[in-house]
This record gives sequence, C-alpha cells and structure tokens, in this order.
Amino acid sequence: MRGQAVHHLVVETRGKGLTEITRPIARWLTDQGIATGILTVFCRHTSASLIIQENADPDVRRDLEVFFERIAPESGSYIHQTEGADDMPAHIRTALTETQLAIPVEAGAMALGAWQGIYLFEHRRAPHRREVVLHLIGE
Amino acid sequence: MRGQAVHHLVVETRGKGLTEITRPIARWLTDQGIATGILTVFCRHTSASLIIQENADPDVRRDLEVFFERIAPESGSYIHQTEGADDMPAHIRTALTETQLAIPVEAGAMALGAWQGIYLFEHRRAPHRREVVLHLIGE
Amino acid sequence: MRGQAVHHLVVETRGKGLTEITRPIARWLTDQGIATGILTVFCRHTSASLIIQENADPDVRRDLEVFFERIAPESGSYIHQTEGADDMPAHIRTALTETQLAIPVEAGAMALGAWQGIYLFEHRRAPHRREVVLHLIGE
Repeated sequence: MRGQAVHHLVVETRGKGLTEITRPIARWLTDQGIATGILTVFCRHTSASLIIQENADPDVRRDLEVFFERIAPESGSYIHQTEGADDMPAHIRTALTETQLAIPVEAGAMALGAWQGIYLFEHRRAPHRREVVLHLIGE
Repeated sequence: MRGQAVHHLVVETRGKGLTEITRPIARWLTDQGIATGILTVFCRHTSASLIIQENADPDVRRDLEVFFERIAPESGSYIHQTEGADDMPAHIRTALTETQLAIPVEAGAMALGAWQGIYLFEHRRAPHRREVVLHLIGE
Repeated sequence: MRGQAVHHLVVETRGKGLTEITRPIARWLTDQGIATGILTVFCRHTSASLIIQENADPDVRRDLEVFFERIAPESGSYIHQTEGADDMPAHIRTALTETQLAIPVEAGAMALGAWQGIYLFEHRRAPHRREVVLHLIGE
C-alpha cells in the first residue's frame, strides 16, 4: 500500500519522568502495512517532550531526570510562574530536548538501534494526559 | 493535489531573542492545497535556531532567553571569538535547541497543540536576515 | 525518478569529538537521482548524536566539546556507570543534541546554509563504529 497515515496517541503520565512509548508506536506502525517510509512523532505540548534514550538500564532515566533538575531547577528565579514552580523549568527542559522525532522505517519497522527506546518526558509534577501525533508516509 | 512544495522564508531579526514565525508558515501551507502531509522547517544558520514554545505568556520567552544567557554566557572563555563575544555562545545555543522541525499536517493545517508556536531564536546581538526553508510533502 | 531510498552509513570515530559526515551523505544523495525531497539522517545510538554546526573554524568544534564537558562532566555523580565515567555523560550529551535531522533537498542537493556541516558527535572516550541511517523520499 502506498500512502500516508496519521494517528493521535494518548499518553497518561504520572508526573515528572520518562514514559516509554516505543511499543504503542511500533504496534500502530505494523498495522499500516507500509514497508519503507518515514515516521514522524510529534508532541503537542510545551511542558512535555520526546527523547530517544537507552532502554536497558533504568538508572539512565533516573540520572537524566536528576540532570534536568539540576540544569533547570524549580528553585530558580523565573518571571513566569503562572502554574507553579515547575512551570518554567518544564518549558526550559522542553527546549533542551525534542518536540519531534523523524524515524526511518525499513521492512515495516522503525530503524531504531538495539538500545534505543522512545520516551515521552513529562516535565510537570502532576500527572497529565499528553497527545502525541504519529505521521507515516511511504509505501 | 499530490506532491511537494518548497519555499524560502526570510526572517528579519532584531538581535537576540525569539521571533514567532507560526503565521507566515501557516499562510504558505494553506496556499499549497495539501490536506495531509509532513512539513519540515529548516534553519540555514549555525548562530540562530528554531524552537516550539508556549505562545501565550511572553514571560516564557523572556525566561528562556535568560536561561540561555546563563548556560552559555558571553563572559565565558572561548577560543573562537572571530565575530565577538556573542559568537561562540550563539553556536552553543544553536546546538542545544533545533535546526529543523518536522510537523505533521492534518486537514490542511499544522498539527500544533493549542499553546504551541514556532519561533526563530536569534542568538547574535545584531539584527540579521535569516533564511528558513519550508518543505512539504503529502497529498 | 519518484520514490524512496535508504542507506546505512558507517562512521568510524576516534573517541570523543565531532566527525564531519556532510560529504558521504551528499555523495549518496547525488546517486539517488531525486531532485526535490526530504532527507532524514538518523543516529542509531544513545551515546553518540548528530549536530549541524559551523564548518569553517575548527575552534568552534573545540569550544563545543569543552562546553559539553563542562555541562555534563565525567566527574559528576551518576548512578549509571556500567561502562565507566564517560557512560552517563554520553547519554546526557545525546539528550541535549540530536538523534535525527530532517533536511530539505532542492535541485538534487541538501538545502544547507553556506556554513553548515553535518557532524556525528561521539561522546565516548573509545573509538566506536557508529551507524547512521539515511532515508530519502521525493521525486
């Protein structure tokens, strides 16, 4: 089949931290029946973002969270505090990571490396319902 | 209409800071008559970059600028100073943000979240004429 | 010719630092005979990444390396140290830069600015064999 497909993936987060979304994306991709193409993953928020990181040792995720706490701390002095102390740090962490990822598709699957997982990075303290748009073009 | 379209958008900046470019991009996109596709926004510079950020409270932009001043200050000691103290910090800020964005298109419009705006981030003190390439593929 | 092409580019690194990969990518692109399209460059690793940076003064690369040493030092205290002191800093530097780049193609060539080069950023001390996936769609 030649063509395109679009899907809105909903991700329920539990507050700050990384939620792996590789599986639901891979499952949707398989259903499209496209062998070769380009998959775009797009996060519709400015206080949550996307990153590709190691999917093996969970300590990597913990260290990443600690790093981003250090570089953009809630204790910093920000003008924008509309939604609390975690508001502006969330925007900064989003700016430092990704809002979108473009991933080649080969033989019907994402061309990820063996240790790569796709994560939604929640930057707010409270759990949120996040929306990620998946777009696929190929044949 | 099935196909592709390319456009070079010129953005005049007024020195360091964020310039919103969501509107001119949306306007060009509408003219292409493509309902579903993928739009790529590409910045042809290494001392200016792209980010998607909150389009509501201008304080977010101010805090972002302050953050990047702090993390890559002009007062830092850099080997590369060819064009002045703001030269190397500009390259670092570009490395930390984005040179390109891929945004899904649905129903003829970018699938941006309600609070997302696209910004050109000028990292040099002086006003510059910046060039952003827009590429669209879809049908 | 209308269509797609995929290629796996192997990059041998010599330990920490930037390796320019603009040329091999441009050469492969030329061979595909596609005039207009979108090229995706995807790094299959979580301890090496991609950036577009100035291709003129090598001091820019040196300053970038120094910056990332400072912001994510090997001397930091990390939980994850499986492969040594340079392990976790490598993941952080990858998170702060890019795993993928989407670059418009016009007249058969990448629409890069005059001073833009594409670099693989090795974050581990030891030389590594890195794999970068190139995907092209257009006509």
